[in-house]
Amino acid sequence: MIIDNLVRRINELRAPIVVGLDPRIESFPEHIKNEPAAKAVVTWSKEIIDNVFDIVPAVKPQIAFFEQIGPDGYTAFFEVVKYAKEKGMCVIGDVKRSDIASTAAGYSNAFLGAENENEKKPDFITINPFLGYDSIEPYITNCINEDRGLFLLVKTSNKGSGDIQDLVLENGEKLYNYLGKLVQKWGEPYIGESGFSRIGAVVGATHPSQAIELRKLMPNVFFLIPGYGAQGGSGKDLKDVWVKNYGSVVNSSRGITEAYQSDKFKCNPDEFGKAAREAALEMKKDLEAFM
Amino acid sequence: MIIDNLVRRINELRAPIVVGLDPRIESFPEHIKNEPAAKAVVTWSKEIIDNVFDIVPAVKPQIAFFEQIGPDGYTAFFEVVKYAKEKGMCVIGDVKRSDIASTAAGYSNAFLGAENENEKKPDFITINPFLGYDSIEPYITNCINEDRGLFLLVKTSNKGSGDIQDLVLENGEKLYNYLGKLVQKWGEPYIGESGFSRIGAVVGATHPSQAIELRKLMPNVFFLIPGYGAQGGSGKDLKDVWVKNYGSVVNSSRGITEAYQSDKFKCNPDEFGKAAREAALEMKKDLEAFM
Repeated sequence: MIIDNLVRRINELRAPIVVGLDPRIESFPEHIKNEPAAKAVVTWSKEIIDNVFDIVPAVKPQIAFFEQIGPDGYTAFFEVVKYAKEKGMCVIGDVKRSDIASTAAGYSNAFLGAENENEKKPDFITINPFLGYDSIEPYITNCINEDRGLFLLVKTSNKGSGDIQDLVLENGEKLYNYLGKLVQKWGEPYIGESGFSRIGAVVGATHPSQAIELRKLMPNVFFLIPGYGAQGGSGKDLKDVWVKNYGSVVNSSRGITEAYQSDKFKCNPDEFGKAAREAALEMKKDLEAFM
Repeated sequence: MIIDNLVRRINELRAPIVVGLDPRIESFPEHIKNEPAAKAVVTWSKEIIDNVFDIVPAVKPQIAFFEQIGPDGYTAFFEVVKYAKEKGMCVIGDVKRSDIASTAAGYSNAFLGAENENEKKPDFITINPFLGYDSIEPYITNCINEDRGLFLLVKTSNKGSGDIQDLVLENGEKLYNYLGKLVQKWGEPYIGESGFSRIGAVVGATHPSQAIELRKLMPNVFFLIPGYGAQGGSGKDLKDVWVKNYGSVVNSSRGITEAYQSDKFKCNPDEFGKAAREAALEMKKDLEAFM
């Protein structure tokens, strides 16, 4: 099962890490920036993948950065998915779609449907659960048929996440905890040999105490943890969220892909791939210190 | 302001109606079904638009049905947007995107950014507010710069919407009412001469009593009302939701675009456009009876 494959690879590499691919053309080195936009984001993504595929189990291309280029960018997103899968990486498509069931079936086919030699699709996608369980079901169908998985938003990493997610319910419980328990229940029929379900959750590292609460309520739910690095989360913040076999994969985007601009890894922009590799190894060390 | 233009056009046509374009290739007539998929959805959408643009103010292409075709479908979505705008229609892009601010900026540029003669963008898009206000701000920036608008999900039309949206908060208030008041507040700086804000809300017709509650809490928020027709809502259900100048636009998708299959408008599949026009006129009559 796909979730077991991800858990296995994380353990082989001792790296519960996913590199977020948020291609910002304005931060590309000149020789890539001068390519047509849709070609540039593929060149850039491949360079990152080439430098991390043997030390990190997964990449997370963020489709918004591809969509803003227009239809060619949409094509580029799937090119990057294909390239990363061919390099043996697990691909988490960060698409955060949401809609009623009849429409969700369309998104489910778009991102989790059958693939062929020329067209590859992500192993996992992120989904916004605000519309309720019936809006999730069409994805689960494809997850079973095509051996894929989901990460449902439970507590996001942004400051404003509290506006809705932290609301206190009539029984005194926070909304994110209530939702966390729902995701645990929704995922229980799909638990693999690793002990984790193919239905995972997004839980931000920027709210460590909340992540710890959620960890207790969701024993079989694998976490995708954004917010590390550029957004402020660290290994220290995460140590109490780890469970058997980590139980989570921590995302870093700019912290790795734009490391060449940082004080620590500063180098020629042409060497952004090499800096990304060094930053990923540094992240691994930071996380290992707290395992 | 774009919201005033929509209100004006609704009143000119006496039709608070938006035709949802959910292209399902399996229901297309044979001569269109045989075209390549991305071409077929454009041919079909144009045929619907040609038959309703003079009696209905707006169309709502649902991007999931385009995305499931692959990258060519994504291109087709924007072709349909362009065609509808050239026909003088208001276009509501039903994309229901959601993400943290730095990523939302990407989606905002993709769907609400500057346009040119060859590339047109929707007048409004739908957005999922589960990530809070900071995830909405990047869209508002483009709404102001490019004169566009939003519809934020408040209470969706599906059965499972209650899983999260109907939760009762510690003060006894339902989540959708709390969110409705937030959307009213978020929209107040952007109220046009019609009395409505460019930040609107999605409120399902399948929950009439809840729509009435929300109407009272959101006096300056224009409603996009899904769930009419195929999903079960009727003019009778909506009569207490109307306010000055309607204050809303009611969506029907299959009820109009697949009318040729219904008992009432049954006709040769080649005449699906004509049946759609008749169904739209019938919907107008149904709504008028309760105004």
